[in-house]
Amino acid sequence: MAQKRLGKETVFLANPPAIVATAAIVGPMEGKGPLAEYFDVVEEDTLLGEKTWEKAEIKMLQEATDLALKKAELKTGDIDFFLAGDLLNQIIAANFVARKISRPYLGLYGACSTMAEALGLGAMLIDGGFARQVLIGTSSHHDTAERQFRYPTEFGVQRPPTSTWTVTGAGAVVLAEGGHGPLVTHVTIGKVVDMDQKDPNDMGSAMAPAAAETIWQHLQDTGRRPSDYDLIVTGDLGRVGKPITDVLLKKAGYDLTPVYNDCGIMIYDTNQDAHSGGSGTACSAVVFGGYILRQILSGRYRRVLLVGTGALYSPTSAQQGESIPGIAHAVAVEAADVVD
Amino acid sequence: MAQKRLGKETVFLANPPAIVATAAIVGPMEGKGPLAEYFDVVEEDTLLGEKTWEKAEIKMLQEATDLALKKAELKTGDIDFFLAGDLLNQIIAANFVARKISRPYLGLYGACSTMAEALGLGAMLIDGGFARQVLIGTSSHHDTAERQFRYPTEFGVQRPPTSTWTVTGAGAVVLAEGGHGPLVTHVTIGKVVDMDQKDPNDMGSAMAPAAAETIWQHLQDTGRRPSDYDLIVTGDLGRVGKPITDVLLKKAGYDLTPVYNDCGIMIYDTNQDAHSGGSGTACSAVVFGGYILRQILSGRYRRVLLVGTGALYSPTSAQQGESIPGIAHAVAVEAADVVD
Repeated sequence: MAQKRLGKETVFLANPPAIVATAAIVGPMEGKGPLAEYFDVVEEDTLLGEKTWEKAEIKMLQEATDLALKKAELKTGDIDFFLAGDLLNQIIAANFVARKISRPYLGLYGACSTMAEALGLGAMLIDGGFARQVLIGTSSHHDTAERQFRYPTEFGVQRPPTSTWTVTGAGAVVLAEGGHGPLVTHVTIGKVVDMDQKDPNDMGSAMAPAAAETIWQHLQDTGRRPSDYDLIVTGDLGRVGKPITDVLLKKAGYDLTPVYNDCGIMIYDTNQDAHSGGSGTACSAVVFGGYILRQILSGRYRRVLLVGTGALYSPTSAQQGESIPGIAHAVAVEAADVVD
Repeated sequence: MAQKRLGKETVFLANPPAIVATAAIVGPMEGKGPLAEYFDVVEEDTLLGEKTWEKAEIKMLQEATDLALKKAELKTGDIDFFLAGDLLNQIIAANFVARKISRPYLGLYGACSTMAEALGLGAMLIDGGFARQVLIGTSSHHDTAERQFRYPTEFGVQRPPTSTWTVTGAGAVVLAEGGHGPLVTHVTIGKVVDMDQKDPNDMGSAMAPAAAETIWQHLQDTGRRPSDYDLIVTGDLGRVGKPITDVLLKKAGYDLTPVYNDCGIMIYDTNQDAHSGGSGTACSAVVFGGYILRQILSGRYRRVLLVGTGALYSPTSAQQGESIPGIAHAVAVEAADVVD
C-alpha cells in the first residue's frame, strides 16, 4: 500500500516498480551528438522512408515501443496499460501506436514533460496494484514540431539564440512489478507555473520557474538535499533556462550546481547549431532511456532525479495574447540496492 | 489495496471513491434541450463576454471546477490531483485552468472520452492511496472545435446528417476517499479500435466499434449482464453510432437495448438541428454530471455504466490519408448502498 501523502505533494512508493527495459531511438542530428553511442538506433534520415514527417514520427515511436518490449522479453499482451503522449495535435503518434499495441491506453498531454508524467503515473498504477507491467512511449520530431508550432522548416526562418532544437526521437520504457532494474521510488507531479513569458522562441525561460518549483517541492517533501542525488536532470531547459532554475533554487536555499544538468544541454554539441539546446518530448525520453539509465546500471549514478519539463505553448492561445504556462514532473530513480 | 486484475482488463476497486460533487455548465443551445433543468448553469451566449471562443471555453471550465469545489465544500488546496483535458490543441482549456488551480496536474488527452478516462484514473489514484481528493474537469465548445477540426463556423458549411454537434459546455467532478455520494466501483480502460472509417463528418461510426469492445470487455471481466445496469450510456455516438454498437454487442451475445442510451442523443431534441446528436468532451461530462448523477442520487438509477467515447481524429493525419481511430473507457458508478 502506498504511503498516504499527508499534505505532501510527493508520492512515496511503498513497492517501487522497476524499470526493466528502455529504448531510445533518435534522428541523424542526435546521432552526431555527444551521446550517440548510448542510443539504440540512430536513423539515417528524418523521414525513415515515409512520405511525411508525422508518419516518420509514428514509425519511430512504434520502433521504440517494439524494442523496449523485446528487451523486456514481453509481448504486447503482457502489458496492462500503455501510457503515451507526444507533441502533435491530438497526440497522433501515441494514438496510432496505441492502435497497433491494442492494450488499455491512457493518452497523456504534458508537452515535453510527458515521459516524467507517464513514469510517475505508471509507477503509481503498479504500486497501487492496478497493473503488473506498464509500457510508456513518447516522441517528438523537429520538422513536425516546427511546422505545427512555428513555421515549416522549408521557410528557413532564422532562429534566435534563445530557441531550442526539437529532438527527433522516440523513447520507451517498460515498468514492472518486482522486476530487475532501477526503481522508481518517488513521484512529484507538478503544478502549472506561469511567469508571463510570451516568446515562443524561448521555452527555457517559460519552463524554468516550473522546474524550480517542482524540484523545491520534491526536496521539501522528501527532506533530501541536492547532494543526496548523483544527478538532478531537467528535461529541456537548455542554456537559457537551466541557469534560471539554478538561481531560483539558490534563492530558495538549495545549491543544485554540483549535481545539476539538463538533457537539452547534454544531447547536442555546442557546434551543432542547436542554439540553446535540445527540447521536445523525446529529449528527456532518449537522454534518460539511452544515457542516464545505462549510467545507473553501470553503477556510476546511484540516485537520479529526472525532472521532465513542459512548455504548455499553443499557437492559438499565443495568438490571443496569452503567455506560456510551464509544468514539470519529477521522478526519483534509484539503483535497486540503494532502496531499503 | 486494489484487487489484482489477474489477466482481466477491468479494475475492481477495493475501496471505491465517492463522487461527492459535480458541476455541469452548458451553452445556450444545450440550455434549450430536454436536459436543460438538470444543468447548474446555462450560459446566455457562446462567448461568455470574452473576445474569443477559446477564452470562453477556458472560462466555462474554470466556472465548472470552481462550482464543483464549492459544492464539495473544498478549496483548491484540498485537492491532491487535478486531472483534466479537452479537445483544443495542447489541451489549453485544461492547462489554463490548471494554472489557476495550482495543484499537481495531470494533463490527459482522450478526445471526447476524457471524462471517463479521468474518472477511471482519479478513482485508481484514490483507491491506491495516492490521493484523498481528486478534481476532474473537461470541456468542449462548438465553435472552437469546428474551426480547429473542420471549418470556422462563419463559413456556414453545410453539415451532413451523420455529423454531430459539439456540445458547448464544461463538466467537473470531485472524487473523494470515504465521501458521501455514488461510488466508482469498476474501471475498464479501453483499447484503440480502428475499422478504417475516414469521414470526419461521421465520428459515430468511427467510435462505435471501440465502444462495443469496451462494453464487451467490461461485461466479460465482471461477469455482469447488461440488465445488471439500470443504464449503460455511451458518450457521443449519436443516432448513427449508437445502433452500430447495439448490433455489434447483439452479435457478441449481449442485448443492451433495454438499458442502453447515448449522451449525444439525450442532450438535444430532434428539432434542434443537431443532426446525429451531440458530441465533444463536454457531452458525456455534462449529461453525466448534470442529469445521470441526479438520477442516481434520487434513487431512479442504482447502477450506471458510463462509457466515454473518443474519436482520435486529427486533421493532420486525416489529410495524410489516415483513418479515424476510436477509443472508449468505461466506469461503473453505483449508489453507495448497492455496493457491499
